Amino acid sequence: MVFTQVTVMGLGPMGRSLAGALLKKGHSVTLWNRSPGKSDELISLGGVLAPTVAEAASASSLIVICVLNYDAVRSIVEQSGDTLRGKTLVNLTGGTPSAAREMAKWASQAGIDYLDGSIIVPAIGEPSGVILYSGSESAYKSYHSTLMNLVGTSTFLSTDPGRASAFDIALLDIFWTAMSGYIHALALADAEQIPVTSLVPYARDIVGMIPDIMSEFANQFDSGHYPGQESNLHSTAAVMQNIITASRESGIDVSIMSEVKALVDKAVELGYGAQDFSRLAEIIRQGSRVKGA
Amino acid sequence: MVFTQVTVMGLGPMGRSLAGALLKKGHSVTLWNRSPGKSDELISLGGVLAPTVAEAASASSLIVICVLNYDAVRSIVEQSGDTLRGKTLVNLTGGTPSAAREMAKWASQAGIDYLDGSIIVPAIGEPSGVILYSGSESAYKSYHSTLMNLVGTSTFLSTDPGRASAFDIALLDIFWTAMSGYIHALALADAEQIPVTSLVPYARDIVGMIPDIMSEFANQFDSGHYPGQESNLHSTAAVMQNIITASRESGIDVSIMSEVKALVDKAVELGYGAQDFSRLAEIIRQGSRVKGA
Ligand SMILES: NC(=O)c1ccc[n+]([C@@H]2O[C@H](COP(=O)([O-])OP(=O)(O)OC[C@H]3O[C@@H](n4cnc5c(N)ncnc54)[C@H](OP(=O)(O)O)[C@@H]3O)[C@@H](O)[C@H]2O)c1
Ligand SMILES: NC(=O)c1ccc[n+]([C@@H]2O[C@H](COP(=O)([O-])OP(=O)(O)OC[C@H]3O[C@@H](n4cnc5c(N)ncnc54)[C@H](OP(=O)(O)O)[C@@H]3O)[C@@H](O)[C@H]2O)c1
Repeated sequence: MVFTQVTVMGLGPMGRSLAGALLKKGHSVTLWNRSPGKSDELISLGGVLAPTVAEAASASSLIVICVLNYDAVRSIVEQSGDTLRGKTLVNLTGGTPSAAREMAKWASQAGIDYLDGSIIVPAIGEPSGVILYSGSESAYKSYHSTLMNLVGTSTFLSTDPGRASAFDIALLDIFWTAMSGYIHALALADAEQIPVTSLVPYARDIVGMIPDIMSEFANQFDSGHYPGQESNLHSTAAVMQNIITASRESGIDVSIMSEVKALVDKAVELGYGAQDFSRLAEIIRQGSRVKGA
Repeated sequence: MVFTQVTVMGLGPMGRSLAGALLKKGHSVTLWNRSPGKSDELISLGGVLAPTVAEAASASSLIVICVLNYDAVRSIVEQSGDTLRGKTLVNLTGGTPSAAREMAKWASQAGIDYLDGSIIVPAIGEPSGVILYSGSESAYKSYHSTLMNLVGTSTFLSTDPGRASAFDIALLDIFWTAMSGYIHALALADAEQIPVTSLVPYARDIVGMIPDIMSEFANQFDSGHYPGQESNLHSTAAVMQNIITASRESGIDVSIMSEVKALVDKAVELGYGAQDFSRLAEIIRQGSRVKGA
């Protein structure tokens, strides 16, 4: 087995984990980060810090970049001069589908083989970690064995460079919306003098119900059939009203749940009160179809 | 074993499941529902339909009620005349803590032993089902063996009748906020021509990460310590901006995520950008402390 020389740019929590996983698997790793002080542990593992983007880019034929956002990526590649030409750039920075497509276009013009990746489950160096890729299939194939060292599951989705990001955005939407409900619930519980740690076992039960309901809702959306047999939008509106009333009585902000309920109320007004909650996806989507037309 | 005679009022999806579980366990069950046509299957299992609330209440010493909301409960008990006096009323209708406390007060004045319950995991008749109770401990103890026939886990939390509802509201907040993120994600995926069923396996991975993060966030809130080592609010703001930008580019409504991001931005403005997302719970809570003072 040949251990590829890899450059990792960006040493935030993810970049450090990525570089650490590569070092542990025997790769030579060149490191770069905008500000100093992030690489000490990685250097002790054998990493080599490059002082400039250009030197970091020149050190390897495979460059992995993982920074805050695409603005940061753009500012970094601008500093690379021509040192990325002929190289493979794997961009694991979170972004939007259109930003990924633009970056791929720019890279193609600059003679760079561009693979866009999204870290879905950030268990870097662990079997449970998941990264999705799209863009250059040749880049994915050439460096497959190296990429396999980053996480347990690496999947190439499509030659459309925006595809991994499209999955990522949808999944981040689920994750961060859910987490916002959770922190709101912590505030609510605390206002009711419930020790928040005593809520956790029940919260785990609740979250444990979600995967099967997600499957059911996706099937309903796919088939356009929303029977509303186990629960319906009319009942959900009543539940949401209770959440809003209880929050208000505790002086807790209700801005997020109010937006959710407004959507449910709209669906009820449109005559879908006896249908499943999943009907909302179609309403959100239809809005965009009208706007997009 | 003595099989208690039970009255079940309200034959929505939950009431039907509750009555069905009791019938299957050998109880005699009297049924009542506002509108007809909901009891056919239950009658075939041995249930007896009462034509009026008063007759339904008179038939048993234990009355279980599970309807849309507390307004419905109030309208039903108003129709009961004096037939509930001396009886035990177990109210499994979803409500707010203050509504449960009010109902308990009214029941006490009306000579009714009142137990408030919240169906947390609605797997009625199954081991995985969970119902939390609060209010009359004597009612809980007297009918414990009957209540145990409804779900696998029945827990009496407190003699404060609002306690079960306070847990319920916080848990429903988690559930419905998460589900709203999910249906938004379905719309987003569809706009990007991703078959929504192909998103589900990854969505399950994402949701699988949530329980441990919930435990961590509860501990952080409990200790007031938000190290921001694996991810911080500054990074989260960038991610949310990507979700909003990608949604807008697909013409998808961003009202919910915009409210979430506004909260994150506020925290960053307050100087907590390097801390964990869980810091937000304290900000939401502090707002209420100020208002509540
Ligand atoms: N953390 C997670 O759990 C997780 C999970 C999945 C995906 N991701 C994604 O992975 C990416 C990295 O996340 P992270 O948590 O490791 O770090 P982060 O906190 O999102 O970003 C910090 C990194 O970005 C660099 N950076 C920011 N602005 C820059 C600029 N203008 N020019 C150059 N570098 C710049 C920082 O450099 P300095 O040190 O100089 O500030 C640092 O290396 C993000 O896109 C994130 O969405 C993260
Ligand atoms: N479904 C679930 O998964 C679930 C899970 C946990 C908790 N819960 C809670 O359990 C309760 C019942 O839920 P559900 O899904 O079974 O049913 P639901 O759809 O919330 O409510 C329907 C029931 O309420 C009755 N009702 C509505 N307004 C009434 C009024 N003014 N007077 C008398 N009856 C009235 C209906 O009677 P008609 O048939 O005459 O309309 C029907 O029996 C709710 O509080 C809900 O939040 C439900």
